[in-house]
Amino acid sequence: DVVPIRRALISVSDKTGIVEFAQFLASQNVELLSTGGTAKKLRDAGMTVKDVSEYTGAAECLDGRVKTLHPKVHGGLLAVRGNAQHEAQMKEQGMSFIDMTILNLYPFEATVKSGASLAQCVENIDIGGPSMLRSTAKNHNFTTIVTDPAQYAEIQAEMAANSGGTTLALRRRLAAKAFALTASYDSAIATHLAQEMAKLEAPAEPPTVPTLTSKVVVPRVYQPEFPLKYGCNPHQKPAMILSRAGSKLPFDVLNGTPGYINLLDAANAWQLVVELKEGTGLTAASSFKHVSPAGAAVAVPLSDVECQAYEVKPEDRDSLTPSALAYLRARNADPMCSFGDFCAVSDVVDEGTAKYLKKEVSDGIVAPGYTPEALEILKSKKGGKFIILQATDNYQPGDVEYREVYGMTFSQKRNDVVLTKEDMTKQIVTSKNELSEGAIRDLIVASICIKYTQSNSVGFAKDGMMVGVGAGQQSRVDCVKLAGRKVSTWYLRQHPKVLALPFKEGVKRQDRVNARVRYIEGDFTDEEKVRWEAQFSSPPEALTAEEKAAFLKEATGISISSDAFFPFRDSIDHASKVGVSFVAQPGGSVQDPQVTEACNDYGMAMCFTGTRLFHH
Amino acid sequence: DVVPIRRALISVSDKTGIVEFAQFLASQNVELLSTGGTAKKLRDAGMTVKDVSEYTGAAECLDGRVKTLHPKVHGGLLAVRGNAQHEAQMKEQGMSFIDMTILNLYPFEATVKSGASLAQCVENIDIGGPSMLRSTAKNHNFTTIVTDPAQYAEIQAEMAANSGGTTLALRRRLAAKAFALTASYDSAIATHLAQEMAKLEAPAEPPTVPTLTSKVVVPRVYQPEFPLKYGCNPHQKPAMILSRAGSKLPFDVLNGTPGYINLLDAANAWQLVVELKEGTGLTAASSFKHVSPAGAAVAVPLSDVECQAYEVKPEDRDSLTPSALAYLRARNADPMCSFGDFCAVSDVVDEGTAKYLKKEVSDGIVAPGYTPEALEILKSKKGGKFIILQATDNYQPGDVEYREVYGMTFSQKRNDVVLTKEDMTKQIVTSKNELSEGAIRDLIVASICIKYTQSNSVGFAKDGMMVGVGAGQQSRVDCVKLAGRKVSTWYLRQHPKVLALPFKEGVKRQDRVNARVRYIEGDFTDEEKVRWEAQFSSPPEALTAEEKAAFLKEATGISISSDAFFPFRDSIDHASKVGVSFVAQPGGSVQDPQVTEACNDYGMAMCFTGTRLFHH
Repeated sequence: DVVPIRRALISVSDKTGIVEFAQFLASQNVELLSTGGTAKKLRDAGMTVKDVSEYTGAAECLDGRVKTLHPKVHGGLLAVRGNAQHEAQMKEQGMSFIDMTILNLYPFEATVKSGASLAQCVENIDIGGPSMLRSTAKNHNFTTIVTDPAQYAEIQAEMAANSGGTTLALRRRLAAKAFALTASYDSAIATHLAQEMAKLEAPAEPPTVPTLTSKVVVPRVYQPEFPLKYGCNPHQKPAMILSRAGSKLPFDVLNGTPGYINLLDAANAWQLVVELKEGTGLTAASSFKHVSPAGAAVAVPLSDVECQAYEVKPEDRDSLTPSALAYLRARNADPMCSFGDFCAVSDVVDEGTAKYLKKEVSDGIVAPGYTPEALEILKSKKGGKFIILQATDNYQPGDVEYREVYGMTFSQKRNDVVLTKEDMTKQIVTSKNELSEGAIRDLIVASICIKYTQSNSVGFAKDGMMVGVGAGQQSRVDCVKLAGRKVSTWYLRQHPKVLALPFKEGVKRQDRVNARVRYIEGDFTDEEKVRWEAQFSSPPEALTAEEKAAFLKEATGISISSDAFFPFRDSIDHASKVGVSFVAQPGGSVQDPQVTEACNDYGMAMCFTGTRLFHH
Repeated sequence: DVVPIRRALISVSDKTGIVEFAQFLASQNVELLSTGGTAKKLRDAGMTVKDVSEYTGAAECLDGRVKTLHPKVHGGLLAVRGNAQHEAQMKEQGMSFIDMTILNLYPFEATVKSGASLAQCVENIDIGGPSMLRSTAKNHNFTTIVTDPAQYAEIQAEMAANSGGTTLALRRRLAAKAFALTASYDSAIATHLAQEMAKLEAPAEPPTVPTLTSKVVVPRVYQPEFPLKYGCNPHQKPAMILSRAGSKLPFDVLNGTPGYINLLDAANAWQLVVELKEGTGLTAASSFKHVSPAGAAVAVPLSDVECQAYEVKPEDRDSLTPSALAYLRARNADPMCSFGDFCAVSDVVDEGTAKYLKKEVSDGIVAPGYTPEALEILKSKKGGKFIILQATDNYQPGDVEYREVYGMTFSQKRNDVVLTKEDMTKQIVTSKNELSEGAIRDLIVASICIKYTQSNSVGFAKDGMMVGVGAGQQSRVDCVKLAGRKVSTWYLRQHPKVLALPFKEGVKRQDRVNARVRYIEGDFTDEEKVRWEAQFSSPPEALTAEEKAAFLKEATGISISSDAFFPFRDSIDHASKVGVSFVAQPGGSVQDPQVTEACNDYGMAMCFTGTRLFHH
């Protein structure tokens, strides 16, 4: 399948390396056809070049608009080699085979970005180039299409290795790239024309009922970055990560092989910590599972009893760095759920954080950077497979995101709202209308956390730490019940009887975590209880409903934030049972007065943020 | 800016309406140039047509490969009208202005789908068409590019209104569409070549570390369909629904204004019922909230006690149609969550179903069709705002879906796996290894339901109906606990004391639903209890923990399906408490033997499906 190159047509706007490449072709006895500036540049370098107009015999006219749009050019490209009839007709009409075309398309987007007017942009649309490109690429059984100086070296090497010819594999690969280039080029043109028309024809207000719009298409051009083993599930192949052409990815992969769900987690976990840090000024961390946070927190010091509950040795407490502290809190909202998490840290990860992470079962991490010691430790996790992503500084994703679901493409502006102290204090609607700095911090933490939690969701926070995240429910009050149970379990982990559970030596960290949760829940089947008790040196005495209730009565000062308004007072009734003192929600329900009354009944302070935070 | 049309070039593969349109052009004294089959068709209709080869004076050669790639064609399209030099050169060379090009590109994807070989696909790549298209579109200050029979009527109307000319606004819009068409066409070619190459060059195993792929860009070309008021939240503007260029949306909007989350719900709710019907042969319905099902069911008759629990009057029971029955079951898995749902029905919606729906608070519906009476009833819901979507027959979305998140584009094959009886019976691993037809049906229902539930998820089913859906959790056992509580609540709604609750006259349907749930849960605050009791003619006696436990002991024959393997036996321990007898899960955990042992301990039958069903 090697085809020798006898004649090449060269017409490039980007002249990088063209002289050297043309000299190589000449050395292989390739006849060179060319036009205008390219011809001049090659002749200046001492090469022999035939003008395309000399080859076609057609005088240049119409300011050069139709130079190469000629049967002798396209026939030379498109004819089937070895077809006797084609070859006879070519001879008759003075056509010659053209075996290679070297050209490039001046990026249309660059013309637009230069500030050119619509008329100038349109004038710049290349017609002859794409036509030759497509003819050459179509006939790649015989012809070689070269569209980028970056390809010269490989082609030269291949020709040198094949007595001046190219292989079908190379020609086919170049053809695929060529069609992708015209696709991308024409997409840019269509997009620009559509945008300019939208400006000219835009109504003052967007229509509020669906109407057929002007029907100009929107092309999104993606650049493959790396393949994924599969998508959401092993049978969903192929799968891939791409960037928008001309942009870069938000993360570099330093270690490991991230999967589809890992990267969804990373995108959400990272945005969450960036915003937590912006909103509170404190180092932040998050712990994700299945695209919702199991926990998230900022670096607030630990109490004695927390140290016990989270298994932090007293001698280690003071040496915890802010990153370690933030992740330790994020991981301890619900350490049963955080098993095998994907985590994010807002600051450079230090050795202390890495050492803490090393003890936990975790899938991967994203952070703005790693000290060399930390990187070393993390790379050794999971037998070297721990995923380590480095976030790009000040990364700015596009404004509008597109998503295909079952033949529909959904586009929307990114949820780029920034939640701050102002949102928590501008409209406090309850009798109790003062918020401590700690309460404001916790309401910010809870609100930003639910912004990245699958809806419906509510979240509870205390001491800069999520202590209950209720994700993915179909009714608001179910979110409160679900997350409220998590708050109870979190709080009861600090009960003296839980702290005193007599674990046998050698029971693993995660097994201790799970055993404590089951002790608190207490609803064992007979089969289960035997196994559970085997983990202790002596069978623990039950934690009774009365003991739990008495201990939970002490819980107070907890904050709750909701991703949409509370439609009824029932959510507040439930929240009152787990020590909630502070409430943030968008407001806007017809029942706002009743919900406010409920807060007053329980002595809670409630603010309306005015901002809904659904996330899907 | 009106330009009269004097000469048009017509070359169409899709000849729909071309004779009528050409006759109109002829009536406006437009000279017609044409080629091959199009010319014959017009002549057969009695029209005068000049062959392009007669116009160019070039003999046809190379099997027609270069017919229109001629300076006289492209000069005629590209010349600047009113430019004296251009006009003089045209005269000199015998060129005439060509003011309009009518062509279409035979969809490359259709060629691929027809099963053509790579060589045949490549042979089918159109070269002359896209070249004329691009020349005409570029020069749209003067020239009109027509690429679709759907455009004829509008152009004809505009020409009739403008003495045979077209306006710049129309020409520019057509040009934008034309470039979008070539973008889409060439992207299909690039994609196909890249895929074929990948097959030819694929390594035996995909790379396990991310590597740079061959860097062929992927353009996705979208056609705006209708604007949305906003995206997930009111501050996320602009937002829009688009289709892939050349495809259509899966739904037509018959009534109302669907929002972003409505349409996400509709996409999932609809796929779920289509697959339920395929999998069971029964009419199916689903009830969605926040992109997960609150319920889903197939049409299985109701028992007496279910009629009471779901408030179906005895006299109505026998007249329930399959659609009504399926939706009634779907809605009654968790009627508290289904408040304001988006529902889907697999069959044409009849009057009975519409009447039942009219009583429920619901946002919208998708179905394959509606009887006139049903449509009338539904259109009157919500003050006329009830959303009614009609699903397209046998809709086939694309194979691979793209999704942008924070600067990353995720692509994956759609989850098009079809779950059948075979999946439930091929690998039963427990001592109990026989499944009744009812159990198989329920395992299919539960498995298809969790395929469309946000992960992690498990679902419980009984009598063809979901009775507990646990969505969006971060640990497997949390899903089981969450959904298990829903099963208990569902089952306890059939408790005699619940059925006998003495509601006052005038308490609304949804308030009765919610009050029963709170009665079953029983954990009132003092504030709440006063309000709750006010709904009854006399204060109900509490439903005690002992009564609940005794009643729940009677529950049996329930099925559970999990979207991923059970990592530990704890999920089975929990499931045993709510009457589970049948289990479906992918299998594949190191703890499969322990999980199987747990099933044996409780006398459950468990099958491994081998198929993970994560959904995000």
